[in-house]
Amino acid sequence: MNEIEAFDAVRRSLKKRRFEHTERVVEEGEKLANRFNVNVEKVRLAAILHDYAKYRPVEEMRNTIINAGLEERLLDFGDEILHAFVGAYYLEHELKVADRDVLSAVKYHTTGRANMTGIEKVVFLADYIEPGRNFPGIEEVREIAKLDLDQACFMALKNTIGFLVKKGQPVYPETFEAYNYYSNDLKRRK
Amino acid sequence: MNEIEAFDAVRRSLKKRRFEHTERVVEEGEKLANRFNVNVEKVRLAAILHDYAKYRPVEEMRNTIINAGLEERLLDFGDEILHAFVGAYYLEHELKVADRDVLSAVKYHTTGRANMTGIEKVVFLADYIEPGRNFPGIEEVREIAKLDLDQACFMALKNTIGFLVKKGQPVYPETFEAYNYYSNDLKRRK
Repeated sequence: MNEIEAFDAVRRSLKKRRFEHTERVVEEGEKLANRFNVNVEKVRLAAILHDYAKYRPVEEMRNTIINAGLEERLLDFGDEILHAFVGAYYLEHELKVADRDVLSAVKYHTTGRANMTGIEKVVFLADYIEPGRNFPGIEEVREIAKLDLDQACFMALKNTIGFLVKKGQPVYPETFEAYNYYSNDLKRRK
Repeated sequence: MNEIEAFDAVRRSLKKRRFEHTERVVEEGEKLANRFNVNVEKVRLAAILHDYAKYRPVEEMRNTIINAGLEERLLDFGDEILHAFVGAYYLEHELKVADRDVLSAVKYHTTGRANMTGIEKVVFLADYIEPGRNFPGIEEVREIAKLDLDQACFMALKNTIGFLVKKGQPVYPETFEAYNYYSNDLKRRK
């Protein structure tokens, strides 16, 4: 799948506001990929496709999880998490995207995971800091993203967990695992 | 093991300040056990013994984890976590405590875990709110502990994770699992 086909597919699936967000994630992802020496073509393709399933009905995604045998614990979570995991599945089976690097970057773009690939990190971070985003602590993440990809991902994970825990909301287990992984990893680097 | 033997054992292992903390955990645990209809004798015994390993050298505890085949991921954590898990092991093998309810309450008194027993919850919470403790948010937990044991444990887990994540410190996986468990469980109850 090339970029033109990918853009066509998501233009059909996304509302205008979400499509514009996608364009900004592509642009931010390209900047980060160049900065941290990550494959730009794969980052751009994953960024274009990352919200492919954003407007699928939750019930449809839940059925897909059950029928396709995806991780059952996803059923405890809402569309905020589901669209990423089920999105990667749809991209593979509906659009025949075969590149595992691209698919995994879509899959983990919201939750992160321990020991992410460069492409996963860049798409995760680009989605978090693209210029349309605005929430407490984001400027600090944007600053660190100029210098240190792992540290910036860790800050984003910290903010996300802090935000959810304050509200008492469940946190996807791989987000916790990612947080612990980078907490230990960055400590070891010191 | 009866209470007198248990008090003798920990009086020998603990510094005065820590022994006084233990006495307050016993008293607080007894109150909570009566309030929430949990076995008072087991709670008292677990509370007496909960910090048995508090002053063991970290290297000794790490060796015990390796030699006794305890969970390897414990090695990523410090004495704050180790003393609970290794403490339960020492109680079983050194003091021949055989009661699984008492041992598991000691084991999980710091981290908590998903779906705790009543005894585990009471000891976890008593250790958190005993009158000598003083940190942000504790008064709110003390208030809720008058009414709802699960909600109070959830608040304590929230505070603990919030505190650690703010500092970027790793969080023991079972604490995260406990947090998610009670977040979902309390939502279901509404």
